[in-house]
Amino acid sequence: MPHQAILAFSLPGRGTRNITDAVAQVVAQSGVRTGIAHIFVQHTSCSLTITENADPDVRRDLETIMQRLAPDGDPQYRHDLEGDDDMAAHARSVLTDTALTVPIGDGRLLLGTWQGIFLWEHRTGPQRRSVVVTVLG
Amino acid sequence: MPHQAILAFSLPGRGTRNITDAVAQVVAQSGVRTGIAHIFVQHTSCSLTITENADPDVRRDLETIMQRLAPDGDPQYRHDLEGDDDMAAHARSVLTDTALTVPIGDGRLLLGTWQGIFLWEHRTGPQRRSVVVTVLG
Amino acid sequence: MPHQAILAFSLPGRGTRNITDAVAQVVAQSGVRTGIAHIFVQHTSCSLTITENADPDVRRDLETIMQRLAPDGDPQYRHDLEGDDDMAAHARSVLTDTALTVPIGDGRLLLGTWQGIFLWEHRTGPQRRSVVVTVLG
Repeated sequence: MPHQAILAFSLPGRGTRNITDAVAQVVAQSGVRTGIAHIFVQHTSCSLTITENADPDVRRDLETIMQRLAPDGDPQYRHDLEGDDDMAAHARSVLTDTALTVPIGDGRLLLGTWQGIFLWEHRTGPQRRSVVVTVLG
Repeated sequence: MPHQAILAFSLPGRGTRNITDAVAQVVAQSGVRTGIAHIFVQHTSCSLTITENADPDVRRDLETIMQRLAPDGDPQYRHDLEGDDDMAAHARSVLTDTALTVPIGDGRLLLGTWQGIFLWEHRTGPQRRSVVVTVLG
Repeated sequence: MPHQAILAFSLPGRGTRNITDAVAQVVAQSGVRTGIAHIFVQHTSCSLTITENADPDVRRDLETIMQRLAPDGDPQYRHDLEGDDDMAAHARSVLTDTALTVPIGDGRLLLGTWQGIFLWEHRTGPQRRSVVVTVLG
């Protein structure tokens, strides 16, 4: 039977958190040698992405680009009940990933040297987020 | 062996349809208690996305944003044989998802309260679309 | 146990390569009749996408759109150590896919008629890229 764990993260607001180690720990616990790790956020205003794990400017530039593609407080949005970042957060979620999958080989995540798994909060205020990790072998 | 079903949907044209219940039914039929559901559209001008299931304005605003990111009838497009929405539909497909994966726990989809699974038609005219659901446990 | 293979591709620079046949070959070797194929790039400046396999103008127009969404050499980027295409390549990777999943039925990829699996190089210079294919049944 697949191994499954639910992880919880408290985030201070918009930005990325590297969750690679937390996912790797679930993979190690699973005992799976060859397969895939599936990572899923149970929310529609945060997301997941795999990107460069070295220079933090990459994630800063990604914020710059997302602010252009889905600007906060755009006057054309109708969904703004929770503030200027409400609809922008849903759009950023749709443009990035609610679920990620990473191959497992020799019992570990087969990530490239520069790849990190990031939880990306799109709301500006603090949030508690849950991430389901399922390991299939 | 994984359980697999092919679902067919008739769509009136551009817009989203909530297919969460149809996917949940395949998961129930599979008998899988822990695993993932894989949902896949066999087309390049419609797509899938997970987004807010409550306020329909979210999906209306997503259309507004997509119209900006991949405008219909852009004069720079070369691929326009089937009309102004032809290339825009392919681009919307690439920017969103051809496949989704959702974790299964206790025999049901582990979606968050506000998450729905949507089939997103990007062509403006009526279409018949097929969706392959595969359940792995 | 899942079947896994690592494929290597030498790419001349920015653009798409159809890797559907290479993935199909791994699926055939796996012997899996029903399941999913998981395809993963171990890099953060190239990506994968499923799009139209017939008219090459579709992929040309996708380059036009990506150049707008994540322009090369944007003065607001801070991450530009490797040149004007450095940050743009990371952004294109985030907006498209690091991993793809395709259903398998009757021992073959259940792609639609017009769907191809493409490896998409976003750097302008030549690169060697590795792609991990994992087949789950």
